[in-house]
Amino acid sequence: MADDVQALKDEVARLARRVSVLEDIQAVRTLHFKYGYYMDACLYEEVIDLFAEDAELKFLNGVYVGKAGVRRLYRDWLSQVWTKGQDGIPRGLLYDHLQVQDVVDIAPDGQTAYGRFRALMLGGWHESMQDPPKVPQEMWEGGIYENAYRKESGVWKFWRFDYNMLWQADYQKGWGRSEVHLMPLTRTWPDDPRGPDRLVPTTPKSWPDTRIVPFHYPHPVTGKPWRDDE
Amino acid sequence: MADDVQALKDEVARLARRVSVLEDIQAVRTLHFKYGYYMDACLYEEVIDLFAEDAELKFLNGVYVGKAGVRRLYRDWLSQVWTKGQDGIPRGLLYDHLQVQDVVDIAPDGQTAYGRFRALMLGGWHESMQDPPKVPQEMWEGGIYENAYRKESGVWKFWRFDYNMLWQADYQKGWGRSEVHLMPLTRTWPDDPRGPDRLVPTTPKSWPDTRIVPFHYPHPVTGKPWRDDE
Amino acid sequence: MADDVQALKDEVARLARRVSVLEDIQAVRTLHFKYGYYMDACLYEEVIDLFAEDAELKFLNGVYVGKAGVRRLYRDWLSQVWTKGQDGIPRGLLYDHLQVQDVVDIAPDGQTAYGRFRALMLGGWHESMQDPPKVPQEMWEGGIYENAYRKESGVWKFWRFDYNMLWQADYQKGWGRSEVHLMPLTRTWPDDPRGPDRLVPTTPKSWPDTRIVPFHYPHPVTGKPWRDDE
Repeated sequence: MADDVQALKDEVARLARRVSVLEDIQAVRTLHFKYGYYMDACLYEEVIDLFAEDAELKFLNGVYVGKAGVRRLYRDWLSQVWTKGQDGIPRGLLYDHLQVQDVVDIAPDGQTAYGRFRALMLGGWHESMQDPPKVPQEMWEGGIYENAYRKESGVWKFWRFDYNMLWQADYQKGWGRSEVHLMPLTRTWPDDPRGPDRLVPTTPKSWPDTRIVPFHYPHPVTGKPWRDDE
Repeated sequence: MADDVQALKDEVARLARRVSVLEDIQAVRTLHFKYGYYMDACLYEEVIDLFAEDAELKFLNGVYVGKAGVRRLYRDWLSQVWTKGQDGIPRGLLYDHLQVQDVVDIAPDGQTAYGRFRALMLGGWHESMQDPPKVPQEMWEGGIYENAYRKESGVWKFWRFDYNMLWQADYQKGWGRSEVHLMPLTRTWPDDPRGPDRLVPTTPKSWPDTRIVPFHYPHPVTGKPWRDDE
Repeated sequence: MADDVQALKDEVARLARRVSVLEDIQAVRTLHFKYGYYMDACLYEEVIDLFAEDAELKFLNGVYVGKAGVRRLYRDWLSQVWTKGQDGIPRGLLYDHLQVQDVVDIAPDGQTAYGRFRALMLGGWHESMQDPPKVPQEMWEGGIYENAYRKESGVWKFWRFDYNMLWQADYQKGWGRSEVHLMPLTRTWPDDPRGPDRLVPTTPKSWPDTRIVPFHYPHPVTGKPWRDDE
């Protein structure tokens, strides 16, 4: 019977690991969804707090390194553009960040996770807004995240944040007659005080050009890993 | 070895509770998604059946109390407006209720759950529809739920339903040139036979005014509870 | 104590089955989401590989039987229309397949699953595209899947794929002034080399006509199965 008990112990330990994976998936997917809700509300401090100290974030052709880099993007750039540096959504601003279609995988170490998500953004400002932000009055944006997350002291955080903005469109024109309005970055920090730490070697394509965002997962049926031969 | 067995029993009991939490999250998120599918189809009886007897529902500045209140909203108001009181989606009506971005938490008692969801509604009626409803012909609506759910006899139900309609827009004008068409309620039941049981003291703001819907969860990294100091 | 150990074994076995159900739900929902990402990218081979050998797929009023039928739809028809038979998303094409609102249930056998999902498609082509596909330049499409999935050798696959395209709209006109552009099929394979194996007896209604897609699940509170008496 001692053998039985040992076998049972092993079985319970295996089961506990499987349950941990499911809990971790739920933690990561809701971490990501919470990001979207904080963004909607222009709660930039809450957004920055979601990142690990040694995070790296890709946006357009820029890489923002560490919490300081992350802060430069959200606080010094995006918040300045959208809300003049204030937190909280001002009257007349729409900034809805739908986050959907989660595919989250937990690495065998249980401390790293990979997630693919889709963003659909509905943004702009109402005609009654005084001194509106210098962004299109009514805009769509579509993109895909391929992120990595780290668990630190039991808490999941953004670790590698790779947002692939794929298209933007003026609402009135639609995607058939619009180009992206966000242009590639040309200068890095500190030359540009709100710039990224470095630029990626090849500027990612965006609308009306297209690209496939590499998949972190293998094909779920064939098991073939994604080969980015674009 | 008796000690071993007891320790294992405790471990299994803890594991069973963790599995129950995961099952409850899945039950609540799909309950909510099913709400969206029933709404699409104007299956108002199916919608009403999702609520607990002692439910409370907030919509605009009204509070609907109990199943009777819930019925007043869906059956006596919304169904009258959209489908002349009939169940099922009539020819020419679009009423798509996308429900996305679920953040569900189960209370330690295992009998209460809290959920944040986002709705994106695409609604209206086709030009070929005869005697169409008195709603905009083509409309967007965006909103956020912060609901509480109760488990009764093992079945999850809507208990506190708090839908925060944040913006509406005429499709052709877009959100930059539209205001919400749903106006605050002014009368309560029974003065208004389809009215709410009471009005909230402060009418929630809506587009082009904005607000932050309080978060039921603390910040996932800092652990700070949300303070609604708006 | 032998009784204790046996009881514990049984408890652990029950728990393991519950964990398997949760894992299966996660596998099926992400299988479906991956379908959406492959479709976005016009990775038709990856899409076809998601299907079981004995799959059946419904699209419009056609039924495509087996892998060969599935291939006829994606490779010989859709890929020809959208990308002239190439894999990968060409410059100037938008083909975003949002997949949301997952309701997945695992059958007691653990080898079959049922899933309801919603699709919102944003598609079309940029005015700068040379020789664009013969589809509307800017289009919406909304639909609902009611699929069955099979687990083969531990791998979940599409088994019964039932996509219910409910509405399409020209972006500029909106849903109030558009009809679907996809017409019912009239010929089967091999008469139509890219046609379905058979036609369903009754052509499903589409916009501006409407219908309710039957629910695979009973009402979550009353437990009443859906009766399709439309």
